[in-house]
Amino acid sequence: VHTGHLVSVVDLLATFVFAVQGGLAAGLAGLDAFGVLVVAFVTAVGGGVVRDVLIGAVPPATFRSSVYPLVVLGGGAAVVLLFGAVREVPPSVLVPLDAAGLALFAVVGAAKAVDHDLRPLLAVLLGAVSAVGGGVIRDLLLQQVPLVLRSEIYAVAALTGAGAAVIGLRAGLPRAVALGLGALACFALRLVAVRNGWNLPRLA
Amino acid sequence: VHTGHLVSVVDLLATFVFAVQGGLAAGLAGLDAFGVLVVAFVTAVGGGVVRDVLIGAVPPATFRSSVYPLVVLGGGAAVVLLFGAVREVPPSVLVPLDAAGLALFAVVGAAKAVDHDLRPLLAVLLGAVSAVGGGVIRDLLLQQVPLVLRSEIYAVAALTGAGAAVIGLRAGLPRAVALGLGALACFALRLVAVRNGWNLPRLA
Amino acid sequence: VHTGHLVSVVDLLATFVFAVQGGLAAGLAGLDAFGVLVVAFVTAVGGGVVRDVLIGAVPPATFRSSVYPLVVLGGGAAVVLLFGAVREVPPSVLVPLDAAGLALFAVVGAAKAVDHDLRPLLAVLLGAVSAVGGGVIRDLLLQQVPLVLRSEIYAVAALTGAGAAVIGLRAGLPRAVALGLGALACFALRLVAVRNGWNLPRLA
Repeated sequence: VHTGHLVSVVDLLATFVFAVQGGLAAGLAGLDAFGVLVVAFVTAVGGGVVRDVLIGAVPPATFRSSVYPLVVLGGGAAVVLLFGAVREVPPSVLVPLDAAGLALFAVVGAAKAVDHDLRPLLAVLLGAVSAVGGGVIRDLLLQQVPLVLRSEIYAVAALTGAGAAVIGLRAGLPRAVALGLGALACFALRLVAVRNGWNLPRLA
Repeated sequence: VHTGHLVSVVDLLATFVFAVQGGLAAGLAGLDAFGVLVVAFVTAVGGGVVRDVLIGAVPPATFRSSVYPLVVLGGGAAVVLLFGAVREVPPSVLVPLDAAGLALFAVVGAAKAVDHDLRPLLAVLLGAVSAVGGGVIRDLLLQQVPLVLRSEIYAVAALTGAGAAVIGLRAGLPRAVALGLGALACFALRLVAVRNGWNLPRLA
Repeated sequence: VHTGHLVSVVDLLATFVFAVQGGLAAGLAGLDAFGVLVVAFVTAVGGGVVRDVLIGAVPPATFRSSVYPLVVLGGGAAVVLLFGAVREVPPSVLVPLDAAGLALFAVVGAAKAVDHDLRPLLAVLLGAVSAVGGGVIRDLLLQQVPLVLRSEIYAVAALTGAGAAVIGLRAGLPRAVALGLGALACFALRLVAVRNGWNLPRLA
């Protein structure tokens, strides 16, 4: 299997998962069908769009192809049409799917920043922004303090994965290996943290 | 009358209307005179600025001319100086004015995206972003769930108008005809929906 | 002393102050150590990033150097490690520090916009955006109506300082003199307003 194709397929899968998750949150918050589609869209593409705007890659990649919008509309429409069923999907399925999306977006975003000649520390930051940005916009629209600021090891996992990927790329590892290791680190840390109820301590 | 001039005049009128409407919302929310000006500004130019940033047309058009800021300041100052009168303007006047602004921003935004070679589906999305973006920022600043996400046919009207305009442009209609038809579709749908209390159903 | 170096040192100092202030607000809002670092980061660099995106200077300056992220992390880490001490720093110290940061960001932002050939009125606006933008994002993330929209002479001071700097630059004053006068005007207006409890009147 060609690596590029593999990444694209997983990237689209992650986009779909994030769209479903955003649409589900919007439906549970009492929005109508259109609001669900809008929130699904910003959740799925928001992080990547912010990243592309910040590195000057405009129009953003998601705005240059019709595939992403169609995948997002598909995810949002699935929530609208199957809301009764989707809301019953248990966390034991949703959390690993979300962690997979988080991991992939983090390493792909970090790699894109490295490709645009950003310094390593900033590439790690932009990878994490790619991964968590859509969720932040979702929470702002739904008037909730962003999940990433509440007490869970979420952005920390994204930073860990992006950091491992950037270190791997700088060390000269093959791209697929560097990104794979980074994604695995993020995915594993997130799942272990959820399973064990790990949280960082509050200050006040 | 030259078409370009006609569009410019109506565009400025729509900017003025959105500035008044944003400033009115800010005043009713208890902000001071300066806050009213700020909210009037972001309501009137926010959607267009987000669109221009996304398509890479920076500095945004509204930041390259002094006319837009002056029109916005005029609208905001009118709210500050005539607040007692402006707050008494009935919905039967405000709603059609707002719908006209929505319609114009939607078709002008979609046409600009087409000019920048975006695909049709994305041009429609960016047209709607141009039309509703300022209102979303206004609502976020005032700590309200954005109107566009609550149950009203608002963004749907913007998408309809932008979609009709893009179809017309792709079909080779003269620019003024394509944009005029799109704006009319958006305006009519919005007014009919308000008059009849049309809403999309909630999911939960 | 070379002027450019002086500006850079003061700019980094202002960045550090804004990071500490944002982190402190996040800690008091009950966020964990990571949330404090995130809010410190967006507070310190948010205004400049928005300015750079709007004038098309991407990747933003703060993303091209590793110095800014390190200074921000230093400020955020200081809040995390010394939270008990930092929360006791009295307003008589914090307010002048914050006013100094506001003043410097306003004039540096305005000068950058002038360098990018923006018209004077828009350069003043962008200077103010540079100065208050980070705080707006901080307040949105913490689910508070932005300070700049509540009743205090904060953005007015930033606009005054940016305006004085732009007038000075257009009048041909040496850069250091124009920026110094603008910063002084902003700083003094802000401190006098706080000391005397000046506020603009609400409309409703």
